[in-house]
This record gives sequence, C-alpha cells and structure tokens, in this order.
Amino acid sequence: MVTLNSGLIVRLLFVTLVFLPTTNAENGCCSFPCQNKGICLTGKTPGSYTCDCSNIDFYGKNCETPTLVKRIKLMLRPSSDTLHNWLVSSSLKWIWDIINNVEFLHNFLMKRIYLLRSNVVDSPPLYETIHDYPTLDATTNTTLYARTLPPVPLDCPTPMGTKGPKVLPNVEFLAKQFFTRTKFRPDPMGSSVLMAFFAQHFTHMFFKTDVKKGPEFTWSGHGVDVSSIYGRNVHEENLLRSYDSGKLKMQTINGEEYPMFTKDVPITMGYPPNHPDTLKFAMGHPFYGLMPGLFLYETIWMREHNRVCDIMKQEHPDWDDERLFQTGKLIILGETIKIVIEDYVEHLANYNIRIKFKPTVLFGESFQYQNKINAEFNHLYHWHPLMPDEFNISGTIYPIKDFIYHLELVLKHGTANFTDSLSRQRAGHMSHHNHGPYTINVLKETILHGRQLRLQSLNNYRKRFNLDPYTSFEELTGEKELASQLEKLYGDIDAVEFYVGILMEKRRAKNLFGGTIVEIGGPFSVKGLMSNAICSRHYWKPSTFGGEVGFNLIKTATLKTLFCNNIKGPCPLVSLRVPDYSDGDVDEDKTFEFKKLDDEL
Amino acid sequence: MVTLNSGLIVRLLFVTLVFLPTTNAENGCCSFPCQNKGICLTGKTPGSYTCDCSNIDFYGKNCETPTLVKRIKLMLRPSSDTLHNWLVSSSLKWIWDIINNVEFLHNFLMKRIYLLRSNVVDSPPLYETIHDYPTLDATTNTTLYARTLPPVPLDCPTPMGTKGPKVLPNVEFLAKQFFTRTKFRPDPMGSSVLMAFFAQHFTHMFFKTDVKKGPEFTWSGHGVDVSSIYGRNVHEENLLRSYDSGKLKMQTINGEEYPMFTKDVPITMGYPPNHPDTLKFAMGHPFYGLMPGLFLYETIWMREHNRVCDIMKQEHPDWDDERLFQTGKLIILGETIKIVIEDYVEHLANYNIRIKFKPTVLFGESFQYQNKINAEFNHLYHWHPLMPDEFNISGTIYPIKDFIYHLELVLKHGTANFTDSLSRQRAGHMSHHNHGPYTINVLKETILHGRQLRLQSLNNYRKRFNLDPYTSFEELTGEKELASQLEKLYGDIDAVEFYVGILMEKRRAKNLFGGTIVEIGGPFSVKGLMSNAICSRHYWKPSTFGGEVGFNLIKTATLKTLFCNNIKGPCPLVSLRVPDYSDGDVDEDKTFEFKKLDDEL
Repeated sequence: MVTLNSGLIVRLLFVTLVFLPTTNAENGCCSFPCQNKGICLTGKTPGSYTCDCSNIDFYGKNCETPTLVKRIKLMLRPSSDTLHNWLVSSSLKWIWDIINNVEFLHNFLMKRIYLLRSNVVDSPPLYETIHDYPTLDATTNTTLYARTLPPVPLDCPTPMGTKGPKVLPNVEFLAKQFFTRTKFRPDPMGSSVLMAFFAQHFTHMFFKTDVKKGPEFTWSGHGVDVSSIYGRNVHEENLLRSYDSGKLKMQTINGEEYPMFTKDVPITMGYPPNHPDTLKFAMGHPFYGLMPGLFLYETIWMREHNRVCDIMKQEHPDWDDERLFQTGKLIILGETIKIVIEDYVEHLANYNIRIKFKPTVLFGESFQYQNKINAEFNHLYHWHPLMPDEFNISGTIYPIKDFIYHLELVLKHGTANFTDSLSRQRAGHMSHHNHGPYTINVLKETILHGRQLRLQSLNNYRKRFNLDPYTSFEELTGEKELASQLEKLYGDIDAVEFYVGILMEKRRAKNLFGGTIVEIGGPFSVKGLMSNAICSRHYWKPSTFGGEVGFNLIKTATLKTLFCNNIKGPCPLVSLRVPDYSDGDVDEDKTFEFKKLDDEL
Repeated sequence: MVTLNSGLIVRLLFVTLVFLPTTNAENGCCSFPCQNKGICLTGKTPGSYTCDCSNIDFYGKNCETPTLVKRIKLMLRPSSDTLHNWLVSSSLKWIWDIINNVEFLHNFLMKRIYLLRSNVVDSPPLYETIHDYPTLDATTNTTLYARTLPPVPLDCPTPMGTKGPKVLPNVEFLAKQFFTRTKFRPDPMGSSVLMAFFAQHFTHMFFKTDVKKGPEFTWSGHGVDVSSIYGRNVHEENLLRSYDSGKLKMQTINGEEYPMFTKDVPITMGYPPNHPDTLKFAMGHPFYGLMPGLFLYETIWMREHNRVCDIMKQEHPDWDDERLFQTGKLIILGETIKIVIEDYVEHLANYNIRIKFKPTVLFGESFQYQNKINAEFNHLYHWHPLMPDEFNISGTIYPIKDFIYHLELVLKHGTANFTDSLSRQRAGHMSHHNHGPYTINVLKETILHGRQLRLQSLNNYRKRFNLDPYTSFEELTGEKELASQLEKLYGDIDAVEFYVGILMEKRRAKNLFGGTIVEIGGPFSVKGLMSNAICSRHYWKPSTFGGEVGFNLIKTATLKTLFCNNIKGPCPLVSLRVPDYSDGDVDEDKTFEFKKLDDEL
C-alpha cells in the first residue's frame, strides 16, 4: 500500500509538474474572454477572471450582450467594408458630387467622419508600453508610447495567448519567404515617390522611437508639433533661427535657398562618419539627412516659413522678430495640417467625398484636443515597401545606394527638377514581397519589436477597431498559396501577428492598403490631426495667426502652392500620384514570385 | 522766414518727441477695447486695432453686440451674485434638500455646475507667461504657466493700460497700510487650521513656481498628479518605494509610521542648514518640511497608500509589487479628488447643494480632460492670511517661530492629538490686514510678480470671468474708509491690481472670500479636478482600480476616514470647521485697525 501510494504521489506530482505549465489555467485572461472593449481582470482562484463592462454599452460575463440601444445602433451601422464600398463606388459618385458641393451636407458628413474615426481611439489613453495594466503614466509620461490594447499576459500558454504555436515563426525565415522583394511591386493606386517622401517626412515628426532605450520609449511630442521643421527643443529652435524678421537661417547654393551646414548651425544630425561638411545640413530632425527626398521637403518647408514671415511683416510692421517667428510657426502648423488632410489623407483615402480640414464642425462636440502616439500606430506605419530600388531624377537613374545620404543630388538637379521627377516615379506597393535590401532589416526589427511589446494578434486588433476578425487564412490574404503557407506557420488565424498580418492582407478595392491599415490607421490619423490645439475653438480664429491674411494662408494652402510658392521659375509637377496612372494598370499577382514553403522549412 | 520755419520745425519735433511717449497712440489695444473675450490686434496705422470676435457669439467693432441666441441666453442667465444667493439662501434650503436627495436632479445640476465652471477656462490654453500673444508653447511647453488674459501691452501709457497712475503704489507702503496684521482676524466661516493645511498641502502639488527662473516658470505637472506624495519624478518615486507589496518606505517612531529620514531616502528637501538629521524627513515635495501641518498630511497619505496596498494584495494575491504600487497610486489619486471635492471644495463653496464627485455626468459632454495651471490661479491662491500667529497643540501654545520646521511636534504629540488640535483652532480670514510677519514678504513678492507678469486689472479679470466690473472703490470694499484710501492711490477703479483687489474685496454672504476669488478660482478648481484622466470614460471603471474593492475605496473616501483609518486608537476630531463655530460669530469690522492714509503718504 505504501509503495502504491508513493507511486501515485509521484505520478500525481509528475502530472502536475508537466501539465501546469502547458495548461496554464492560472491566467484566465490569456484567452481574451472579454468582448467589446471589456477589460479582463484575473480573479482570486487560478484560471478565474472577471470582465469589466463599465461604460461600453455591453453586459454579461464576457461583455457579450449589447444593451437595447446599442443593439439597435449595431443593426443600423453598416459594416466597415460596406461603408468603404459606398465611399469609393463609381456608381454612387453622383451622390457624392452633390454632397461635396452642398456645404451643410458636407459639414455634417465631415463631422461624422471625424467623430467616427477619432472616437475609436481612447483619449486620454489607458495603457503605456511598460506596464500590462492601466497606469497614471499612460497619460503623464511622454517618454512612453501609449498603447491601445494591453500586452498578451506573460504567463500564457502561447505568445498570442492560447492560440497558435508555442514559438513564433523565425523572423529571418518570414523575411525571406514573404517579405523580400524579388521584383519591384508598384503601388496599384499610382502613388508617386513624392507621396512616399511626404509620408516619411511628415510621420517622423511624431514617430520617434528612442532606439537606445527600446521600442517602448519615444522622444516624441505626441502630435503634429512641427518639430520636424523647428527642431526637437527650444535649444535647437534657437540655433535654427536667424533672429531677423522671424525667419530661419538659410544659405544660398546654386541660386536657391537651402538649410545651413551643421558647422554653422550645430545641431546633432545622423550623418555617417567622415561625411563631407558640405553635405551635412542642419535640419529639424536628425534623420532627415538620410534621403534627398526628406531634404527636399525640409528645404521647401523652411522656405515657406520665411515666406510667411515676409507676409506677416508687411501686415504687422510693428511686430518684432519673436512675434513674427512664433506666429509664423503657428501658420506653418496650420498649413501642415491643411495639406496633410486635403492632399495626403485625401490621396490615401481615395474616397468620393472630398476630405476637408474643417475644425469648426467639431466645436461643441465631445472631442479631446489631446493626443498620444500609440505603439500600434507606429508599427502599422512602417511603410518601407513604398521605397523603390532606384530613383529616376531628370532621366538619370540613381540606385538607392547612390541616393541615400546624397543630398547633393537636390542641389545639383535643383528643387524644381527634383520635385518633378519624384512626382513622375511610382512608389512601391505596401504589401508582402516588397522590402528592398535596404529596408528588410527594418521589417525584421519591426516584427521583433512587436514580439517584445507582446502585441496582441491581428484579429484581436481587428475586433478592437470594429472589424470582423478573419475566420480563415484565405480570407486574410485573398488567395490560396500564401494562405496555406501562413497557416502552416501559425496554425490558427487568431494567432497571426499584427504587423505580419497587415502586410499579408489582401488589398481593399480602390485603396493602397488592406482594410486593417485603413481602419486602424485612420482613427489614429484623424485623431492626431484634428486634436491639435490650433483646431480648438479658442485657437481657430484669425487673430491666432496674425489676422485674416495669416488665417487665409492656412485655409488656402495646398501641396502644389507650397512647392510653387517656394521654387523659382516655372512650377514643376507636384503630385502624390504619377501622371500616367490609370485604374487597374497593375496586375498584382504578377508582381512577385511564389516560393514553395516546404523547400525552406 | 527761414528762422521762423526752423523754429516751427524745432517746435514740432519737440512736440512729437515729448508727446509721443505720453499719448502713446501707437497701441490701440492699451484701452482693452475688445469686449466679451474678443481678441485685440493692433492695426497697420498707429492707434488702430481690430477685434477678433470669432467663436464668441458677439460681433461689432468691439465685439459688443451679442447674437440673438446669445442675447436670449444672457437675459435668462442669473447674475453670479444672484446664483450665489440662491445657492446659500437659508429660505431656499428646503428645495436644495429635495434636490440633494433626488439622484437625477442632483446629477443634472452637478453636470451644469461642472460645465458652467469649467467652460470659463480656455482649454487648451491660448497664452503662456513669456509671450503677449497666442503661441504653440501655451499648450506644449509645460515649464511655463498658462495664462487666461494676455499681459498689458508693454507700450501703454500706464501699467494698467490707459487707466490709473503711471507708477503703481509702492509695495512696501501697500503692505504696511493694508495688509499687515495688527490683530489676528479669524475666518468668519469658522475654518479650522486643519483646513488651512489641507489647502497648503493639496495646492503645492501643482502650484510650483520655479523661483530661480522667475514667476513665469513652473515645474508643475499641471494638475492633480499626486506628485505631492510620490515625488516630482520617477527617480524620487523609486527612492520613496519599499519594493515590497507596492508600499512606500516608512519608519516607526513612538509606535507610529512616519516618512523616512533623508539620510535613508536621499530626496532633496528644503530644510535649513544644520537642521538635525532626525528632523529631515523625505517627502514628495521639498517644501513639506516647512510646517508640521504639511508633515501630518503627508504622513497620513503615505500610510493610506500602504493601507490601500494591503487591501489590494488581499484582493489580488497574484499581483507583484509593481502592479500593487501603480494601482495603489491610482486609488490614492481617486481618493484625493474625492476628498478635495466632497470635503474641501464643499467647505469652501458652502452651498446648499451637496458638492459631489460624479465623473459619469460629464461622459459624452464637450469637456477637455487636460489641464494647465494658469498664472492667475496661482496668484489668487496665495492664501497666507489663513495662517494664525500661534498654534495650540493639546493646550501648549507654540508661536509660529517655534512651529516652522519643528516637525518633531507631530512625533511628540502624536498624529491623533495633532489632528484634533488643528481641527479645533480657527484659521485666519483671507482678507486685508491679516498677513503675519512670517508671510508679509510673500504678499509683497506676489504683488511684484503680478507686476512683472503685467497682469491686467481686477476689473478686466472680473469681466473675463463673467462678473460685472466694479464701478467704484466703495463697491469693491463694501465700506468707505479703505475705499477712499485705495482711490487716492489708484485713482481709477479700473486700475486696481489683481491681487490687491482680491484681498481688499468685501466678503460674499456665507463665504470665506470675496466674489472674485470664488468666481475665478472656482472654474480653475473644478476644471483641474474633473479634467483628471481618471475621470474620463475609459478610466472611470472598477478594473482601473483593481476591481470593485479598489473602486469603492475611492467612492467612499472622506477626510474623516482618511485620518481615522490611519491613526491608531480612538479617532480624533477631523474637521475643516472648528466645532464651536456659529454663523456670524465674528464682527469683521472690529478685527483690524484703520490707519489714516495721509499720515503715511
């Protein structure tokens, strides 16, 4: 009996020791049981949990049941895909033409779009990147990214909670199998390289991962703060200023105005060692020395600041340098938001409704004029496939290796030719099989950062942003081959990683991206733009911008006039879409080669 | 003819040179012509101006004409004094008793009060303290105070614009004539010294002038961030933590828990040189070593944090130190706001309606969950007259010189006796002739800072905060003697300085203060409290605070339980009003001596 008992005990112990780590009944939140933004809290007994369904119009153990009002709202609400189809449909275009021309209808819809988008973003945010639960730091600590969903708990059976493999696919393998460019895949919507550099120049204003500290940390001002032009702090701003009539210091090269050299304006930039002094330009962001396209945008914006100061000085001969500078900065901020919304977002959305910058429609609404950059927004905005392998500047082909850090190309060709050329060349398709050799390491790092941050699965993010989760790999990719390869690696559609899923997703009709980028990026983007202080009731008035003349500079700004007003001579082509684009001119399936998975595994 | 012409020219030149600086026709904004929050901009021709009346429901050259809707609203709106009288009237008390007991009525009115108050504050703010016009810094630069009204322009005929003397009254003289205490003037509303220390302990959390840099600068977190308890940054917070069960480090002295010494927790505190090590306690704010009353509050709050951690640990045995700490901090923040609103603001307002902390009533409203401390709020919160000249602790009288820095008094008498004594002693009246010798220099500095910041006049601030400007000095002071003295000094009621006016103002019925403090301080206060992130829809739910138990700790917190739960033995008297108070027991006119002005001038 004693022997038997001991054997039983040993067996029981063995069972416990072996199975506890695999069943992992301890953390009931690993299966993400709480629906509809309900918050999961572990209970006192192992495996138990409670869902906090407060303030979300759902109830039940897992917040699965809508209240009556919510149920009706849900029934009336079109799905995200239906809404998208209405917004891009050619057959409905005549309705949108009417709406675009009837001010009160357009205002009403713009308000709905602003609110529908921005209400998806928690503001103030509940989570930051170094804790798994709500903290005060989420709102107060600006050195951390916010995050929309908390991480997968540390003590879960799999990296994605309870679904998928215990070890996520090897990143080197993923990169090679799915993401490395075999042949340049052009953007099917005809986006130009000028669009790619617009995205890069604009978004680096607020996506500023503090790489030395880790992917959790940022040195961002968390919004559109024009630090891209005026530097990261008052010290740099002071270095960049001329202290004359509000203007920034600039120098003339080949008859054009350009930023100063770092030897004259000692700002720390990210140039390689032994880079020649005459190519080290001082700019608002240390990264802008990397690409001639960034240098072009920076140059144009700095010229615009000085042009605005000239106009303001004429309006206010009594103003000193300081007031001209500060007001010029506010006008440049306004112009930035105007151009981003009406040129850039308009291009990305590609809706039949004209996307307009109308801050007044939000006055009196429940809308927070504050913003925090979310880690997820930063992740999905890794759009490196947009970069081509070579650049055609006025007929000369520069492979990317002869382009990176070669700011002299802008000086040599001149800003007019450079702009014209970037407008005529097509950017890459933001999709799989489209990372060139210079950006493939960024892709790997992005996936690894996502794992380090323990980002929840693509499907969890889709649910969070009011999208139906994908039910199969085929539904995700829209085809069979890649779907089957992905399924072999991840096993469960609910285990597909966030960034991997975004790149593998099928493209939406008449859009550059898959639905997930649009429906997650859109809210963060609208929120970030419209929540700027200058859009609020007390700011958005002529006197903030030095009177009607300054206010009109903002209200009439376009990407085209931004370049044309600041380039001598005839205006070049300034376009976010290549001129020879026609709908459906790219057969996406023929732009990459399938590799058999089995060969590689 | 030549001689005559030259003489004419010389005379004209003379006239120009002499009169230009005195007439100062250049700046048309000096007379503050724009009404109703209209913004004044100087025009191109000397002396001209325009008023920007955008988004304020008024129009006309000086924004003097209300729109029809606004006109009706204004007609229906009771004056601030009428409203105050309704809220404090004894004869209407029965109505308020009903309202206080009918949840939906009370919720409706609390929402109106929150919104009425907070809508007066521009959020995000338009101005900061180093520019005279709107800047981006007003929202982004946290090292500056915000300000509600821009400064008086530099080039005006008088320091107050166009009204009053060219040189403001001598501050030494003002202090001596109007503000020095001749005899202790007790608060007519019976506020206790425990109330005075509550105000001091609470408000130093966010009023943090960076004195070395000047009155424009602050090191504040700009809101209720409990930095008073957890230190000014993560470094200090880490020093204060025990890293065991989420708790703060404390030590036992005389059988009670107290903060650690700075030799053990090396936080820079503001103790005098050669202060004994055993009196140098490490606390969240360098200033809290000054007064035993501050030390008492700090001790109690730190004990409360540790008590909350014990409760949370019982609820969540699986939580680590970090989560217990972070969640404890959120609960302490919630308790702070609850107690400030329902004990402290309730006491200050003294309304018939019960002032309650109900974040849910603001959900879905147009309300900004962000805050910036305004320089004007900081100024009007200089309440040093509350401090008595001596302190009666358990029957022993300590003159203030034996009280300041003597934290050992709390250890000696024990927290129970100390709390009891502070609850029984009356604070001073926040009014003129009531600054003791230890605070009179703060008064002088405050007036001088107001001049350095070029604060607009009391009447301009009254208009900005929807109060009628005073039309005479008698109307301001409510009597003749001080009024006539002030008139001799300022000449024009529109030239009375902000802080001087606040101290000279007649008291409102059933209130500690004059109407200006209440009507300017009230909005800043309500805004600062309710705009905290934890009051927003995504935060205000049980899971943020570790579940229902933590949430209830906040919802049931009171000043009395805060002390009683953290003091061993029988609970002392914990009261913001002295127990022997009866309405009208102070004859204010007899509490100070008039001095003839002529003797001094």
